[in-house]
Amino acid sequence: MNQSFDIAVIGATGTVGETLVQILEERDFPIANLHLLASSESAGHSVPFRGKNVRVREVDEFDFSKVQLAFFAAGPAVTLSFAPRATAANCAVIDLSGALPSAQAPNLVPEANERALAGLKKPVQLSSPSAAATSLAVVLAPLQALFEIQRVSLTASLAVSTQGREAVTELARQTAELLNARPLEPRFFDRQMAFNLLAQVGTPDEHGHTLLEKRLVRELREVLAQPLLKISVTCVQAPVFFGDSYSVTLQSATAIDLEAVNAALEAAPGIELVEAGDYPTAVGDAVGQDVVYVGRVRAGIDAPAELNLWLTSDNVRKGAALNAVQLAELLIKDLL
Amino acid sequence: MNQSFDIAVIGATGTVGETLVQILEERDFPIANLHLLASSESAGHSVPFRGKNVRVREVDEFDFSKVQLAFFAAGPAVTLSFAPRATAANCAVIDLSGALPSAQAPNLVPEANERALAGLKKPVQLSSPSAAATSLAVVLAPLQALFEIQRVSLTASLAVSTQGREAVTELARQTAELLNARPLEPRFFDRQMAFNLLAQVGTPDEHGHTLLEKRLVRELREVLAQPLLKISVTCVQAPVFFGDSYSVTLQSATAIDLEAVNAALEAAPGIELVEAGDYPTAVGDAVGQDVVYVGRVRAGIDAPAELNLWLTSDNVRKGAALNAVQLAELLIKDLL
Ligand SMILES: NC(=O)c1ccc[n+]([C@@H]2O[C@H](COP(=O)([O-])OP(=O)(O)OC[C@H]3O[C@@H](n4cnc5c(N)ncnc54)[C@H](OP(=O)(O)O)[C@@H]3O)[C@@H](O)[C@H]2O)c1
Ligand SMILES: NC(=O)c1ccc[n+]([C@@H]2O[C@H](COP(=O)([O-])OP(=O)(O)OC[C@H]3O[C@@H](n4cnc5c(N)ncnc54)[C@H](OP(=O)(O)O)[C@@H]3O)[C@@H](O)[C@H]2O)c1
Repeated sequence: MNQSFDIAVIGATGTVGETLVQILEERDFPIANLHLLASSESAGHSVPFRGKNVRVREVDEFDFSKVQLAFFAAGPAVTLSFAPRATAANCAVIDLSGALPSAQAPNLVPEANERALAGLKKPVQLSSPSAAATSLAVVLAPLQALFEIQRVSLTASLAVSTQGREAVTELARQTAELLNARPLEPRFFDRQMAFNLLAQVGTPDEHGHTLLEKRLVRELREVLAQPLLKISVTCVQAPVFFGDSYSVTLQSATAIDLEAVNAALEAAPGIELVEAGDYPTAVGDAVGQDVVYVGRVRAGIDAPAELNLWLTSDNVRKGAALNAVQLAELLIKDLL
Repeated sequence: MNQSFDIAVIGATGTVGETLVQILEERDFPIANLHLLASSESAGHSVPFRGKNVRVREVDEFDFSKVQLAFFAAGPAVTLSFAPRATAANCAVIDLSGALPSAQAPNLVPEANERALAGLKKPVQLSSPSAAATSLAVVLAPLQALFEIQRVSLTASLAVSTQGREAVTELARQTAELLNARPLEPRFFDRQMAFNLLAQVGTPDEHGHTLLEKRLVRELREVLAQPLLKISVTCVQAPVFFGDSYSVTLQSATAIDLEAVNAALEAAPGIELVEAGDYPTAVGDAVGQDVVYVGRVRAGIDAPAELNLWLTSDNVRKGAALNAVQLAELLIKDLL
């Protein structure tokens, strides 16, 4: 295939957008023209791509008929405003914000549910799920062939970069203030983030669930094609810059064959299984990598029908930008 | 009661021991003579108590017949060496190291299983459970009256002070090195602890479980008097100096009455329930306090028989030193 494509990245100056542009270059995505878009604030800035500086422009003024595919990595409001314009201009959309209903833009993780591409109409609209749902789907999908997953219990300890650039800056600032014994006035976060864990990311609804937790449950059920899967989830904000960590317990109806689990994880794409006794970490393993690291594979204590796992992955890269680019690689086969 | 007692604290220069001495003073524990003991390394140092400096002595040379009660806060090896000497000298023992079998020294959390004191023979030996089991027992015990807890899923994010003084120093050192962009050579921890999460605390056995995880399961089953309770647990080392955080999911057979849960937690001793929508943190709430903070009380998503909670407590104080002093307060009623 020698065809190349005109592409737009909305949110190109952001945490996810910048990485997405890097990954397009790394993977030699067949691009003719690359259009980088953001708000008026950073219009005029430029971002490096293939040895040149590409000027960032305002999304408001962009003519989507110039491109065949647009990545939306600028938050739900921007997707809701501009994705319809892209679609109307016959441009495919890959959304990273979770704003589009899945009936319109199905959630897709290539390692887990590539089948969901079948029958999509052009111009295609796809959602790249939240980083947590993406990483979990990569690991749980190969296990579905081994046993019926009846229940998932998950504590997701999220890096501050989950909340974008400002959150990263603020963790660094708070940490420096505290180490210098200066009084702390939290910004961005509603309280001290350094050397602390915050029990919720976003505001909970009247039942106590945050948007991110509900999104994760919805997306994971969809990607795993288990619409009634029981998922208990708590999303925690950890004082880590990059890399999410997931403490996961799966329940099966019958004893789980750990050897088969290890073999399936070893063989599956997108996963790096760490040897027994060792464990992966966000900083030491996951960051900058294209795989979800899995460790601490074990049954429960006195509970052979239980499987415990520790996962860690780069939330910006594996959880978002890379997944979106992998989706684009599937689309260019015959859906653009 | 006007009686006062001669007391020994073994490990008095440690994280738990120092706090224990403070709490004895704060709560005006009826002490005649206080003997502070440690290893030869800090023998000769002194620790403040009631406005005086009490000299620390070597435990090896101590005559346990001088005291009626000894707190062991110096690790399992020290307990195993010296607790038998205390018992032989007719001295009651409160152990914080988890070294003594529970048939000999039952695990006790006053808010949960004071009943376990009945029938104990003098000289009494008691275990104060791990910080995680202690804090969880305080919160789960009042819920046992409301529904049958069928399963507990727990991710315990532990403060580095769980591992004593050296761990605290090392987190501070690593953080400063990183903020100053100096290369990191981890000490104490086997890898970078600052801005990272470590998936296990201690070395796992051949089944993948750490000693701390097994201890927690055993202690919690004992204190809650549910010897077959299913408990999934992952103990994680968080880059937090003081204060553990627990993400907990409980499963019941039937729908859980959240109003009743909130009322029971509100009424129970040793608990501070944070209002809905808000959440407690280690640094902002738990540290230095005598209660376990509880927040994010909620059912599961589409799962009314599930209860999710976020707990945080001071691992050194509420999880260890205070519980041990509360045990001593029970013993002096008629068991010393
Ligand atoms: N960070 C993660 O781990 C992660 C993972 C999965 C999904 N996501 C999702 O990806 C999206 C981007 O997240 P991020 O972490 O990259 O955020 P970020 O670092 O804050 O970057 C936001 C980007 O959006 C642009 N933007 C903001 N308002 C805009 C507007 N009105 N019009 C056009 N562009 C606008 C910003 O451009 P300016 O420079 O002009 O402000 C910037 O390029 C979010 O929906 C997020 O939920 C993030
Ligand atoms: N930290 C927690 O959150 C926590 C919670 C619950 C239970 N615990 C348990 O409490 C115990 C103490 O923990 P920690 O965190 O306080 O540890 P730590 O800060 O390292 O202090 C250890 C204490 O033990 C003394 N010690 C060490 N080796 C000794 C020996 N051979 N003979 C006599 N004394 C000796 C030390 O005295 P020197 O000054 O002479 O070295 C020091 O006073 C451990 O069993 C731990 O598992 C700790």
